[in-house]
Amino acid sequence: MKIGVYPGSFDPITNGHVDIIERAAKLFDKIYVAVIKNPEKRPAFDIDSRIEMIKAVVSGKKNIVVDSFDGLLIDYVEKVKAHAIIRGLRAVSDFDYEFQMALTNRKMDPEIETVFLMTDYKYSYLSSSFVKQIAKLGGDVSSFVPKAVEEKIKKL
Amino acid sequence: MKIGVYPGSFDPITNGHVDIIERAAKLFDKIYVAVIKNPEKRPAFDIDSRIEMIKAVVSGKKNIVVDSFDGLLIDYVEKVKAHAIIRGLRAVSDFDYEFQMALTNRKMDPEIETVFLMTDYKYSYLSSSFVKQIAKLGGDVSSFVPKAVEEKIKKL
Amino acid sequence: MKIGVYPGSFDPITNGHVDIIERAAKLFDKIYVAVIKNPEKRPAFDIDSRIEMIKAVVSGKKNIVVDSFDGLLIDYVEKVKAHAIIRGLRAVSDFDYEFQMALTNRKMDPEIETVFLMTDYKYSYLSSSFVKQIAKLGGDVSSFVPKAVEEKIKKL
Amino acid sequence: MKIGVYPGSFDPITNGHVDIIERAAKLFDKIYVAVIKNPEKRPAFDIDSRIEMIKAVVSGKKNIVVDSFDGLLIDYVEKVKAHAIIRGLRAVSDFDYEFQMALTNRKMDPEIETVFLMTDYKYSYLSSSFVKQIAKLGGDVSSFVPKAVEEKIKKL
Amino acid sequence: MKIGVYPGSFDPITNGHVDIIERAAKLFDKIYVAVIKNPEKRPAFDIDSRIEMIKAVVSGKKNIVVDSFDGLLIDYVEKVKAHAIIRGLRAVSDFDYEFQMALTNRKMDPEIETVFLMTDYKYSYLSSSFVKQIAKLGGDVSSFVPKAVEEKIKKL
Amino acid sequence: MKIGVYPGSFDPITNGHVDIIERAAKLFDKIYVAVIKNPEKRPAFDIDSRIEMIKAVVSGKKNIVVDSFDGLLIDYVEKVKAHAIIRGLRAVSDFDYEFQMALTNRKMDPEIETVFLMTDYKYSYLSSSFVKQIAKLGGDVSSFVPKAVEEKIKKL
Repeated sequence: MKIGVYPGSFDPITNGHVDIIERAAKLFDKIYVAVIKNPEKRPAFDIDSRIEMIKAVVSGKKNIVVDSFDGLLIDYVEKVKAHAIIRGLRAVSDFDYEFQMALTNRKMDPEIETVFLMTDYKYSYLSSSFVKQIAKLGGDVSSFVPKAVEEKIKKL
Repeated sequence: MKIGVYPGSFDPITNGHVDIIERAAKLFDKIYVAVIKNPEKRPAFDIDSRIEMIKAVVSGKKNIVVDSFDGLLIDYVEKVKAHAIIRGLRAVSDFDYEFQMALTNRKMDPEIETVFLMTDYKYSYLSSSFVKQIAKLGGDVSSFVPKAVEEKIKKL
Repeated sequence: MKIGVYPGSFDPITNGHVDIIERAAKLFDKIYVAVIKNPEKRPAFDIDSRIEMIKAVVSGKKNIVVDSFDGLLIDYVEKVKAHAIIRGLRAVSDFDYEFQMALTNRKMDPEIETVFLMTDYKYSYLSSSFVKQIAKLGGDVSSFVPKAVEEKIKKL
Repeated sequence: MKIGVYPGSFDPITNGHVDIIERAAKLFDKIYVAVIKNPEKRPAFDIDSRIEMIKAVVSGKKNIVVDSFDGLLIDYVEKVKAHAIIRGLRAVSDFDYEFQMALTNRKMDPEIETVFLMTDYKYSYLSSSFVKQIAKLGGDVSSFVPKAVEEKIKKL
Repeated sequence: MKIGVYPGSFDPITNGHVDIIERAAKLFDKIYVAVIKNPEKRPAFDIDSRIEMIKAVVSGKKNIVVDSFDGLLIDYVEKVKAHAIIRGLRAVSDFDYEFQMALTNRKMDPEIETVFLMTDYKYSYLSSSFVKQIAKLGGDVSSFVPKAVEEKIKKL
Repeated sequence: MKIGVYPGSFDPITNGHVDIIERAAKLFDKIYVAVIKNPEKRPAFDIDSRIEMIKAVVSGKKNIVVDSFDGLLIDYVEKVKAHAIIRGLRAVSDFDYEFQMALTNRKMDPEIETVFLMTDYKYSYLSSSFVKQIAKLGGDVSSFVPKAVEEKIKKL
């Protein structure tokens, strides 16, 4: 059984993240959606909110586990005995950063692969920061995030 | 009559911005230079200073209006009944970011186009941040910004 | 009245080209779709076929003229008294090439701007070469090209 | 059981390809290394040679099948009932091309994912064309290709 | 005698920096490793620590001088009568930023060249920020930084 | 004495090449401008013409030698006992290709560095192919190439 970890801040989860989770769930036998507890940049939503919003979206999908972690990603990946780290790619500028992360992770554990999936082109412009910025300025984000997120983001 | 909006922080306006404004003014019947009142990053110059410096540069050009806005760019563009958002391109890293913004804006109002113009190559290295950094370190910025800006930036 | 030239091999015209033509037609008062008679790479369709396929698509749109040219693009642009060259952007690798062309054209006539428009993301993967390759291998291209092109491309 | 297809011209197979095959073989239950019979560019090695060289390298690995195909990749992927197309990434310029191919394939069959793996950085500079060029100029290619390829390439 | 300046925050020096210093030392008669006293982002190590760590690494190499500077880089370069600024390149996203800096420096003193060297591919993923982040999360950084740095970084 | 090799097809030499040669000549004690006798793509000018045009441009500069070579670049670099290969950079797409070449050359002789210099931004759009294409279409190339080349290119 092949296991994948999809790590991120998910601050909040967007339709682009959901798209990657669904694609990964077809390729792996089990997926851990792993929320970084304390990301570099102070999150807008606390860890419980971020997990709750993801669970509202993936509930009912048997091979998806929503979890959180502290410390090094590679330690978490080894703990859950996963074979791969899953990352979504949108743009070239992403790619450079993702490449550096992936090479660093490979250096720390050569047995773990990083697997890149392409997001649907209709989500290629989406990022959690953009969504928060638009919501903050009073814009409509209903086509960018799941229903459960839309309600929470309005209260930010 | 085709109308364009050229949005930015203009903190401060540089010769590169002036170059784009002049190019756009030849293509559109009317240009709004639209200063973002409260950009993400705290500006070095307040909104009145930023507007005043732009006005000093474009004064006398009839089809150019200097204005400011709060909230979503797309709402401002709709308010002034513009047909396009104008952006200057310098580098590939710009391009990814600009693409995301443009796709998000198109999603919010499909009738508004984003139009990219190329800055003169002699300004391709110029950014407001670089100019402020050089000025702060005591460097000469007279070839990077209009006269009106040079005087203000020395007092920062 | 602002006039734009949209140059290309159009070998054949794809839905991505059509998308750019429609966007440009809203920004300019008049658009010349200008087919390069003898492109560097030997075309799959002769000049008359390429023009005919474009005409089948844009027929009935009053401010669009389908034309062809030989020699330097900039000479053609000057001849039809256009203000801008219109280019569609899809990818970063495009962008470098387009930048070089645009700078060369600006060097030859500084009065002519190059204006970049973004293709709809659902056409971001489309190119005439891809379409021809898929058709050649027996694939279905009906969602990539206009009806008039689909029929012709099957006979290649 | 998850099945992947790793397509390419393999003209000839390099250590970089071998690296990707080995990484993919740990993530998928079964891998088809699928050689394009008639690639766009005339190959230096005929289809039998290209297959033979790959077989010499992967012999003994039970979950790897070496095969060839004609026509559309997506038709082949469907025929062998694979879940994903596997691609190795080396450089940013790769990425744009790969993205276009992957989006086109997804358009033709949305059920098939394209999965990108990162080649080991020590092979990041390697391509079949570079290897052939170096061999042709009399250079030593022993650190770039498997033993079986080295012998054949000298006779080109 | 050709003189080069290798500027940076060196917060802290990594094996990637050491690699560039060694390569540059073979091309130039004299190298100044010039530590920026007060970089934009508040450094994790104070200026004395950063210099001390570099000295521990390059000690005994006669044509390498470790120094620090305040103010404009170009003023420092002129003061030490250097002919070139040395920069290491790792990724495409680096390149855009480096290009802007280099063009700005050339604008300020056309006599000073910026020379780009490629870091060894095995260090292509390395940055001071990554190293600090990994150390902070309890990861092992012994293969990323010199011995002298490893000891200091644990105490952060 | 540090020696550099500046290799290329120089088919023909452009003002951009001249710019790089002049910059390199200030950094190195001696520069070999090394013309590839039989480049991959059939050259428009024969080897004698290409050398003659370069000589017309650099004549009188004592530390510049115009030469040609067959076979592997790295063998030539070793033969003339050079310390570095010099390359000019213009665009991001260049950079990927240059990086691959440089890594391959380093693999073959780790003692030889590749040094990248930035071309003047006013030549950033220039390539030999563009110049030939413009000349072929009857365009004026006098601002793109040295006088000696302009006369020859008209006779192509």
